[in-house]
Amino acid sequence: MLTEHLSGFIGEDRRRRMDEVLGNRTRYLTAVLKDVYNSHNTSAVIRSCEALGIQDVHIIEKENRYRVNRQVTQGATRWLTLHRYRARERDPTETAIRYLKDAGYRLIGATPDADRVVDDDDLAVPTAVVFGTEIDGLSDQTREALDGTFRIPLYGFSQSLNLSVAAATVLRTLTGTMRARGRDWRLSSEESADLRFAWYRRTIRESDVMVRRFIANMEAGD
Amino acid sequence: MLTEHLSGFIGEDRRRRMDEVLGNRTRYLTAVLKDVYNSHNTSAVIRSCEALGIQDVHIIEKENRYRVNRQVTQGATRWLTLHRYRARERDPTETAIRYLKDAGYRLIGATPDADRVVDDDDLAVPTAVVFGTEIDGLSDQTREALDGTFRIPLYGFSQSLNLSVAAATVLRTLTGTMRARGRDWRLSSEESADLRFAWYRRTIRESDVMVRRFIANMEAGD
Repeated sequence: MLTEHLSGFIGEDRRRRMDEVLGNRTRYLTAVLKDVYNSHNTSAVIRSCEALGIQDVHIIEKENRYRVNRQVTQGATRWLTLHRYRARERDPTETAIRYLKDAGYRLIGATPDADRVVDDDDLAVPTAVVFGTEIDGLSDQTREALDGTFRIPLYGFSQSLNLSVAAATVLRTLTGTMRARGRDWRLSSEESADLRFAWYRRTIRESDVMVRRFIANMEAGD
Repeated sequence: MLTEHLSGFIGEDRRRRMDEVLGNRTRYLTAVLKDVYNSHNTSAVIRSCEALGIQDVHIIEKENRYRVNRQVTQGATRWLTLHRYRARERDPTETAIRYLKDAGYRLIGATPDADRVVDDDDLAVPTAVVFGTEIDGLSDQTREALDGTFRIPLYGFSQSLNLSVAAATVLRTLTGTMRARGRDWRLSSEESADLRFAWYRRTIRESDVMVRRFIANMEAGD
């Protein structure tokens, strides 16, 4: 009812566009960035996830604190659910891994020495794809927590891609297969409703004032 | 014979690695970057091409002059054939397009409004994939020269990807299909021999001195 009330403040085209994006959103796949040093890279991955329809991005910080680079994200953070595991927490990596496993995700990560590439099997259950630092790749702690590894097929002297390029390449392949195979990857109607409400609020200027006024009116029996 | 002579100065593992990379090299696909303003982006595309096995990259400059960002290319330029069309030429775009068409390439480019995605048909003949500026995409002049357009399937509010991410995504898909379908995409034995010679020369320190000495010795009947 509150969502309905807010919808009156958003143009029809915009609402329709939001519903279209919602219909293509997924939590079946999620991206996890661990200790990525370069905020530019993190921001580029965030933008790719938004464009590919991936709703959740998990950012595990170590010494470095991630700062959104708005020129690179192009506003993508506004629509996504960013899960941040701060360096000041006791063990942010452990916290993130436990959260994801409890939520039913299978964790996979790219390592150049893996003997397989991503395939259909990686989409049998909800999957979190973990990307490590630009320099060292995945730490031992992360590797041990993974349920599987894969390599990106490369044929040159370079045996790696830029991190944001690697992430987009893998996530593009996986989302493409996911959509083509028609698995149950869409948001539930409840998740959609929650997200729609969040997007409406972010879209409407001073929506908090409106929400508070609406609730106050309801409480006053208006 | 000269190549054979130089090979004596390169370790066996290194020579074998070069042959392996040569066997996966292609000129069937090539990337064309037009007026890309950000040298970081151009460098990232160069690195991706090298890693994916694409030998030729065409760089069309406008006002901006491309400078190699070695931290991003990770040495990839050393192994590639870069074709540069300088801003000081009369019409670098026209020159590049004519060169590619004369060489038998079909030109395709990404535009968000295209009604199809890349598919097998894009690999029926040697193909050059053209990427435009980060801001305006492809110019009218470039669009008119294209033999086909395609869009990258996106599902979010963002209707575009970072340029280096978009390029890698498309080139990864196309090279993957190309390799899987076994079309005649490999270098000819003559092209391989030329490239091997170039790589040997770049690998051996002071190879020019050695090459000159070898030729001088031959001429002296040594």
